Amino acid sequence: MTLLSRAREGTVTETISRVALKEGIDPQILTRSIAEGTVVIPANSRHKHLDPIGIGQGLSIKVNANIGTSQDRVNINEEILKLRAALDAKTDAVMDLSTGGDISSIRRSILENTSVPVGTVPIYQAAVETATKKGGIIHLTPDILFETVEKHALDGVDFMTIHCGVTRNTLERLRQEGRTTDIVSRGAAFLVSWMLYHDRENPFYEDFDRLLSIARKYDITLSLGDGFRPGSLADATDRAQIQELVILGELTQRAWKADVQVMIEGPGHVPLDQIEANILLQKRLCHNAPFYVLGPLVTDIAAGYDHIACAIGGAVAGMAGADFLCYVTPAEHLRLPSVQDVREGVIASRIAAHAADIAKGNKAAFLWDLKMSEARKALNWERQIELSIDPEKARSYRQSSMPNSQDVCTMCGDLCAIKIVRQYLKSSNKSTC
Amino acid sequence: MTLLSRAREGTVTETISRVALKEGIDPQILTRSIAEGTVVIPANSRHKHLDPIGIGQGLSIKVNANIGTSQDRVNINEEILKLRAALDAKTDAVMDLSTGGDISSIRRSILENTSVPVGTVPIYQAAVETATKKGGIIHLTPDILFETVEKHALDGVDFMTIHCGVTRNTLERLRQEGRTTDIVSRGAAFLVSWMLYHDRENPFYEDFDRLLSIARKYDITLSLGDGFRPGSLADATDRAQIQELVILGELTQRAWKADVQVMIEGPGHVPLDQIEANILLQKRLCHNAPFYVLGPLVTDIAAGYDHIACAIGGAVAGMAGADFLCYVTPAEHLRLPSVQDVREGVIASRIAAHAADIAKGNKAAFLWDLKMSEARKALNWERQIELSIDPEKARSYRQSSMPNSQDVCTMCGDLCAIKIVRQYLKSSNKSTC
Repeated sequence: MTLLSRAREGTVTETISRVALKEGIDPQILTRSIAEGTVVIPANSRHKHLDPIGIGQGLSIKVNANIGTSQDRVNINEEILKLRAALDAKTDAVMDLSTGGDISSIRRSILENTSVPVGTVPIYQAAVETATKKGGIIHLTPDILFETVEKHALDGVDFMTIHCGVTRNTLERLRQEGRTTDIVSRGAAFLVSWMLYHDRENPFYEDFDRLLSIARKYDITLSLGDGFRPGSLADATDRAQIQELVILGELTQRAWKADVQVMIEGPGHVPLDQIEANILLQKRLCHNAPFYVLGPLVTDIAAGYDHIACAIGGAVAGMAGADFLCYVTPAEHLRLPSVQDVREGVIASRIAAHAADIAKGNKAAFLWDLKMSEARKALNWERQIELSIDPEKARSYRQSSMPNSQDVCTMCGDLCAIKIVRQYLKSSNKSTC
Repeated sequence: MTLLSRAREGTVTETISRVALKEGIDPQILTRSIAEGTVVIPANSRHKHLDPIGIGQGLSIKVNANIGTSQDRVNINEEILKLRAALDAKTDAVMDLSTGGDISSIRRSILENTSVPVGTVPIYQAAVETATKKGGIIHLTPDILFETVEKHALDGVDFMTIHCGVTRNTLERLRQEGRTTDIVSRGAAFLVSWMLYHDRENPFYEDFDRLLSIARKYDITLSLGDGFRPGSLADATDRAQIQELVILGELTQRAWKADVQVMIEGPGHVPLDQIEANILLQKRLCHNAPFYVLGPLVTDIAAGYDHIACAIGGAVAGMAGADFLCYVTPAEHLRLPSVQDVREGVIASRIAAHAADIAKGNKAAFLWDLKMSEARKALNWERQIELSIDPEKARSYRQSSMPNSQDVCTMCGDLCAIKIVRQYLKSSNKSTC
């Protein structure tokens, strides 16, 4: 039985209880949300040391960090350092997107070195290994694809991106309308190349039931990928993107019927004014399945600072209802991220998620800020540093520039507004009492 | 005659023509917007080498960088380096907020070293020099305040923050309702201390006409400061903040009657879901005078990363109608910013302004992104770097991690989706033609 089928029976499993406790909500309510598909807990039944998290409506917004090798940079130790950096920065989940080196052993190392849920994109390994062994990705077969999914499942991967909505019909719409950046999803690029070469339908769409049977067997959460996500603002919310979303909505209901948890992946590059509509569309078309957004990036020109473009888009998306923010690092569009890029990416997305949580009325999020502001008013610097999103960075900033008076900072020195006002408001309050 | 009075006569001055050309709009329309007060061009008649900019409705959103010494850190060379960093990062304006060292000569150096509009907060100098000479800010006098304003005007300062809305009545409201962080504006802190000590009204409010006569004489743009801006999310949109805004709206109309250009400063720390309402309120209460926002910061806990919290708030504010974004650097709440902090702060705010410009339909902004995406599809890396918001950083990222194939990057290597899809979509297009 899967978590979804047990939730439908009304069983509050241990996994559900643990998540409810973390979120500070009633386990019965959480069970109902899982049963309705509005919340997922990615938890492969073979993932032994998992500390489960919930993603979806009514819960705090979660953050994912993508790590993994590329064909140009293979260094497993560096990937483990990236994993640690992501965990230190308090990511809620990681995805291993490795495409270089011994992909299986990197995945297993990552799974061994963390208790957060781990996601993968099995088609990457399938395509890379087929290209290496057989000389081209066109030699992929449906069997290779599904067997790779099962291999990842056997290792304990909790959620997997599968580009089921990349169909011939949607591709034809893309070609008819035309696009600025065509396809920027690697998974979709592999599938489309194969589909065009063989003049065949996407196996993940055509044999979706085979995928569902693997997902059910290991209790995998499917993350239905947005292969036709816009790679530029000019392509946002176009026919190909929306057509794919319509199909993902249909597949969501099929997954639910098969007792499989599902979330939907979303764009991509989206102008600020189109984000809210994109979230609304996803929620409506996919019957409130959790929405996992990559960014969205609110401009195409922020290379070197895409974590900021992502934080802007992620905060607005989160406020509108996105449930899971995939980070983007400053390295996006330029290079495989470094350890430092990973850290900066996670923190930026956490700021976005937190700002959106506050906007949505999350009490714990609001109280964190309140404590910080009370520490600020009290001129309690140690407490301010502890309460910062990245205490290490806050401390290094303060220590790099120590004030003459210990109760202020070098921005204002003794002209600190809080320090001045405290004195006068206090004495004035006394005189009127 | 001031720019405002000439615009009201329908005169398209040279300054107006230059700004219209930069914005790509009709000079007549710009003249009308200035006459109506919805656009300002801060341009002190004594500022010789000014390259003027327009701020307000219908124009691209502008960015300001605050620099200047503090009492704890006085290094004029470093301030000039910060000025250059801000200009290199393409700030639209700078404010000199110096409170340490020889404040007048720092201001003059900054004015000599840039052609962008320069703003100041004259009460800083008035308070610091009074405290130094007379032993306390309570020894300020109305004459000292107004004479300092005139001193700055004589030097060619284009716009000045004056906290005219800090009144006894508003302060009483603040005390009655209570606040988490009371007052975080230094200007307001000085004024409130003086007002409470002497049991007197704010001279800038009481003798607003004296301020207007100086502003008119030198054609200063008044930036009506938000002394009661919230310093924590918990204080946002409270009575003190809104009461001050009501007063600033009244003073805006008085300034317009005196032929003085005016803009309004806004918060501060504001939850994401309250930003749009804050902009609407300002625009309505101040009859569409340009809105100059400090941030807004969408969380209190991002010390070390407040430029990101600011970019999120600034983008949402800009989309809702804010016209001028004051940057916040990563050093905010921790130390006086360094040269590097200044650079990062400007870029983050420019990303926010640009994302909001696109959302508002600014064609030039959209075309920049389109060009970038076309370069991306063409795998033209030199062009992508040139089109990045910070080409230097983009280049250093790419050079730090060169791919094996020159047409891709190390994120995906030869598995680049654009590279793969181009090949297959092209051959497939051929076969169907």
